Parts: sequence; C-alpha cells; structure tokens
Amino acid sequence: MTVRESWFPSHVKDMSQKECQSLLEGGHVGRIAFVDPDGPVVLPVNYVMVGGCVVLATAPYSSLARHAASAAVSFEIDEIDEFTESGWSVLVRGRTSIVERHELSGVDLPQPWAEGIRTLVRKISPADISGRRLIPT
Amino acid sequence: MTVRESWFPSHVKDMSQKECQSLLEGGHVGRIAFVDPDGPVVLPVNYVMVGGCVVLATAPYSSLARHAASAAVSFEIDEIDEFTESGWSVLVRGRTSIVERHELSGVDLPQPWAEGIRTLVRKISPADISGRRLIPT
Repeated sequence: MTVRESWFPSHVKDMSQKECQSLLEGGHVGRIAFVDPDGPVVLPVNYVMVGGCVVLATAPYSSLARHAASAAVSFEIDEIDEFTESGWSVLVRGRTSIVERHELSGVDLPQPWAEGIRTLVRKISPADISGRRLIPT
Repeated sequence: MTVRESWFPSHVKDMSQKECQSLLEGGHVGRIAFVDPDGPVVLPVNYVMVGGCVVLATAPYSSLARHAASAAVSFEIDEIDEFTESGWSVLVRGRTSIVERHELSGVDLPQPWAEGIRTLVRKISPADISGRRLIPT
C-alpha cells in the first residue's frame, strides 16, 4: 500500500439548516435513495423545492413509483471539487407522498430530461436535513 | 403550472457493462446508499476499483461502518450537464464485506478527504451493474 503524498486533510464542518435550505433551493438535480426487495437503490432525479418539500416527477410504473410510495427515503445533493478535495453534501431524510396537481398551482414542475410520460408527482416531506462541508486546509 | 419551453426530451440509452466498468475505473468519488433503522441513507465517498470491486475506507465507528457491514448496499456515480440536460449514471448493487489490508497490497487506497482516522476498508462485491446515459436530442 502506498500513501498519496498529495493528500491534504480537510476540515469537516456541519452546515446550518439555513445553508442546507439555501443549497436545496438552488439545486436542480439530486439523488433519491429508496429500498426495493433487493436493498437500497440510488438514482439521479431532477427536482424543485415547494414549501420546504422536495418535489419530483416520475413515471407511474417506475421502480421509484413502486417502491418509494409513502416510504422512508433519502434525498441527497452534493458538489465535489476533486482538485482541491473539497465540497459539500446535503442529506434530506423523510417520507414520500403523492402530490395532487392542484397543490402545485403556479409551480414550475421538475421536467424529467428523459422522454416518456412522467405524471406521478411525489414530494418528500423532510423529517431531518443535515449537511456537511469539507473545507481544504 | 407552467411548462418549461426550454425542455428538450433526451434519449435514454442503457450502457454496456464495459462502458459502466470503464466509468467506474475512471472515477474517484461516488455515493453509497445503505439502510439504517430510519431507512435508506446516501453519502458521498471516495473509492478505488480493485479486482472489479468498489473499495472504500471508512471510520470504524461511523454510521456507514455500523449499518453497512455485510449488508446490501448501492453505489452510484454520475455526471450531469445541467445546460444540455444530459448525463449518465452507473449503479452498482451488491453486498459489503471487510477487506483485510493484505488483500490490498500495492493498491493505492482511497484516502478520505476529511481529517480523522479511517482504517476500516470495505469492498462492495457487485451483484449487478447497470448504467444509463441521457443523450440530448
């Protein structure tokens, strides 16, 4: 085993709720983790924040729709700089529920980039939000 | 609800195993999803590929170490271009196991960027690898 001489330890800093919220509001793409019969799965999704909830659109017959209905899920966003070995991540934990279209009046819904009809809109109501920032020393 | 006029549907293409492997070999940072008593969690980690397995280093007393020991996990890498609304993601599903240091002789282990002692090395032995690419139309 060799040691990477270029490695500089970074400081880990817990982010405030305000900072986490601000990063969530500013993002467009995150990753949802849910559990199917074979264990946890993590997939990229695009999203919008509506009233403090993470809102995403999915296909009614997708794996996400089948296994993340009213289930405990995680939602993660991050930004990593490999050069400075720094970055941040925000983790939202909560349960999913179906959103009725009328609840989203005036909201610019996340448009999945892939072709296909994705009409099922879900929201993740956060039970816990946490974030960490790695600051180069 | 308004419609984003700028949205262009992309084509989804399943990637070959070779393409997935190549992207995994070329990466340094991914996200591991595991399940703790409150549900799935997803966290960024850095990694190296060793003999077809995803190898990562963690702290012996971390949440990851406690809840992802010999458990079903997912590991995900992706690259997203928000401007062209395209990108790719690779998902590895498998079980974790502890790696003895001698198994990694000559391997440049992933160095966690955060300060702290991370001596527990784990590998994810892939049971399934899949990847999708979103190509702008």
